[in-house]
Amino acid sequence: MNEVFSVSTRSARQSIDITDEVRGIVGRSGVTEGLCQVMALHSTAAVVLNETDDPNLATDIVTALERVVPAGGGWLHDRIDDNAHAHIKAAMLGPSELVPVRGGGLLLGTWQRLILMEFDGPRKRRVSVTLLRESS
Amino acid sequence: MNEVFSVSTRSARQSIDITDEVRGIVGRSGVTEGLCQVMALHSTAAVVLNETDDPNLATDIVTALERVVPAGGGWLHDRIDDNAHAHIKAAMLGPSELVPVRGGGLLLGTWQRLILMEFDGPRKRRVSVTLLRESS
Amino acid sequence: MNEVFSVSTRSARQSIDITDEVRGIVGRSGVTEGLCQVMALHSTAAVVLNETDDPNLATDIVTALERVVPAGGGWLHDRIDDNAHAHIKAAMLGPSELVPVRGGGLLLGTWQRLILMEFDGPRKRRVSVTLLRESS
Repeated sequence: MNEVFSVSTRSARQSIDITDEVRGIVGRSGVTEGLCQVMALHSTAAVVLNETDDPNLATDIVTALERVVPAGGGWLHDRIDDNAHAHIKAAMLGPSELVPVRGGGLLLGTWQRLILMEFDGPRKRRVSVTLLRESS
Repeated sequence: MNEVFSVSTRSARQSIDITDEVRGIVGRSGVTEGLCQVMALHSTAAVVLNETDDPNLATDIVTALERVVPAGGGWLHDRIDDNAHAHIKAAMLGPSELVPVRGGGLLLGTWQRLILMEFDGPRKRRVSVTLLRESS
Repeated sequence: MNEVFSVSTRSARQSIDITDEVRGIVGRSGVTEGLCQVMALHSTAAVVLNETDDPNLATDIVTALERVVPAGGGWLHDRIDDNAHAHIKAAMLGPSELVPVRGGGLLLGTWQRLILMEFDGPRKRRVSVTLLRESS
């Protein structure tokens, strides 16, 4: 009921639609009713739910966060590492999303997709998927 | 253990306290101990937990997000649709909140209420409520 | 399967690593596989998952939010109380995090720790920990 999969990101900032991968795990789990949690096991990446039909939207989310939390914006953590901005962005979005499971599939709105947001790539990222079944 | 209800919003930006509606669903479910997830099935609306005693507070949250992510702020998605700002705001707040269920009711702090945040209204919005019972 | 513990914060803005306290509760619960929800029962404090190895990082998160949502930034709620900024920051980060439980412990990335973020201290804060066991 828990599976961890890897995603290799290719650039410093990137968004990757992971909905199909998560749907595959839900299908294999045999859970038909319950909840599915999807979590990046990292503190400089995040998981969000939003539209991916227009790929520019994820770029806009990255741009908005960059305006608020610019790389090299005088952050204390940059004295040790240069990725303070990535930590702050990830903390603002949060590492996980929770989605209902109904009839063996994810209950999502028409325009909702699960997106892994990379803020400090390229890297190999691990994503945890946990399924909790309704008890009867 | 899953129920979807609709809320008709009346303006472009709006906050609606949905705590009583969710409490009704928890009561009808018969779940006494567990978790309750409340999720907007949309990518331009969000669910937050905060105070509604002073209705100005939700307005302040909307104002703060508008300063950070202004409508028409040069977003790429606006070439297709004019609601990029609403998507970004919704992604920042997140579509769902999770609340413990204890003794048949929601475990909330004194000033915590469930609020549906509309960023691209007026629209009919669907809110999913999923209950997971503790197994013994 | 639900336990509430208290944390006394000592300053107006503060971050407190609560991972060990939560781990103790998970251990005592006897839950080996499932999910663990950690939630601040307040609307001017938040729970985030991020690095605490460098304590400056939490300071950077507070600084970033202060730039976006300054105290005394013309918020309507300040007419009643002077803590509008704290409410807005808490709403942006969200009050809770959800973590998988595997093999009796929390499934976290190497740099992920549970952090209580105080935005309106000093105060006594209550943190709820709810465990949901996988049903078989």
